[in-house]
Amino acid sequence: MKKFEAIYMLSEIAMRDGIYRYLTIKTGVFGREIGFSQQSTSRKLNELYSQGLIDKVVLIRGLKVKITKKGIDYLMDEIKKMGSIEEKIRRIIIEGSVTSGMGEGTYYMSREGYIRQFMSFFGERPYPGTLNILLDNEMGEIISFLKSNYRYRLNGFREMERTFGDVILHRATLNGHPCFIIFPERGHYENVVEIVSSENLRNKFSLKDGDRVKLEVFPYD
Amino acid sequence: MKKFEAIYMLSEIAMRDGIYRYLTIKTGVFGREIGFSQQSTSRKLNELYSQGLIDKVVLIRGLKVKITKKGIDYLMDEIKKMGSIEEKIRRIIIEGSVTSGMGEGTYYMSREGYIRQFMSFFGERPYPGTLNILLDNEMGEIISFLKSNYRYRLNGFREMERTFGDVILHRATLNGHPCFIIFPERGHYENVVEIVSSENLRNKFSLKDGDRVKLEVFPYD
Repeated sequence: MKKFEAIYMLSEIAMRDGIYRYLTIKTGVFGREIGFSQQSTSRKLNELYSQGLIDKVVLIRGLKVKITKKGIDYLMDEIKKMGSIEEKIRRIIIEGSVTSGMGEGTYYMSREGYIRQFMSFFGERPYPGTLNILLDNEMGEIISFLKSNYRYRLNGFREMERTFGDVILHRATLNGHPCFIIFPERGHYENVVEIVSSENLRNKFSLKDGDRVKLEVFPYD
Repeated sequence: MKKFEAIYMLSEIAMRDGIYRYLTIKTGVFGREIGFSQQSTSRKLNELYSQGLIDKVVLIRGLKVKITKKGIDYLMDEIKKMGSIEEKIRRIIIEGSVTSGMGEGTYYMSREGYIRQFMSFFGERPYPGTLNILLDNEMGEIISFLKSNYRYRLNGFREMERTFGDVILHRATLNGHPCFIIFPERGHYENVVEIVSSENLRNKFSLKDGDRVKLEVFPYD
């Protein structure tokens, strides 16, 4: 049995609380739940047993199974691997250099219509200006992911004659300092992102055009 | 392809950083690394693609693959499942009732030979007395797990005429209050556990013999 199949079997036993005590199962029912026939469930449980990953006691009808210490270690390895994948998913690194950019976001971030929504999400008032980052090449795919998958969106509104479109935001950090990446939905340069914070980041970190910066973006936070 | 197999394939791509950007692979090499033949790797990648779990670009020699948003969601589901299993592994619940018990641990926990080691592990002086818990039935398997799998062990020593054996400890909480379960390695009643803390738990929680208590034990902390 492949390791990933053993992990699957163990995780299904674990989910049913067969970790530190015996879980009573009928192989037919358990098999149906996990997507195998009764015969192949029985065979797979025997394999787990012969690999020392579970203990089992055969009953007149059914089985008692319990994951062993070796099985728990097996699961813990997988949990660690999944943890490192989660880290990769939750923390996207974007690199680029400071640019004077378009300044479009500055205008946006001084509109009360956006500020009110921003404050209700994050509890702080954005500094009315953005820091523009000229992205390194090959960031396009990440940007298109961030633009289409987000948790925070500021709704557009009408002010006098003008209409303002929706703005997508992601939590991020710049040099470890909390900030937000914003993407105006309407027209945006693919290779520039704008950063908002409650502080003036350019002054705070004494950034000049061309300085290298590293952003960490947290699309799930 | 079974879901757990898709998860395995996706996790192997994710580990190689094919999440937000394309990962260039040769199916033969990648297959060897993940335990499949070139042909079956190729077929499985096609299945992932047709399920919308990865994007792919065919190169002259090899492939570029990238996990899609749907694939990331798939992985996040699995990560959540693994997280709930980790919770079950890391937090064992033991129930029972207060008893006057043997008081053996009280004698132990007033020996400097143990106290010094205890303090070096946990930075606090144990109250020189133990709280004894008479376990509910069917806790035997959990106890034997805890006795054979531990992070903390106080080494035995000789004092005057007497020798003291090793003592195994686990971090725990009683009613949410941090404490430690101790298991003297020599002779111990299977159905009673002894609890140590920096405070007198019996007084702190006004416990009388027969009172029900719930312990959470953290064998990996």
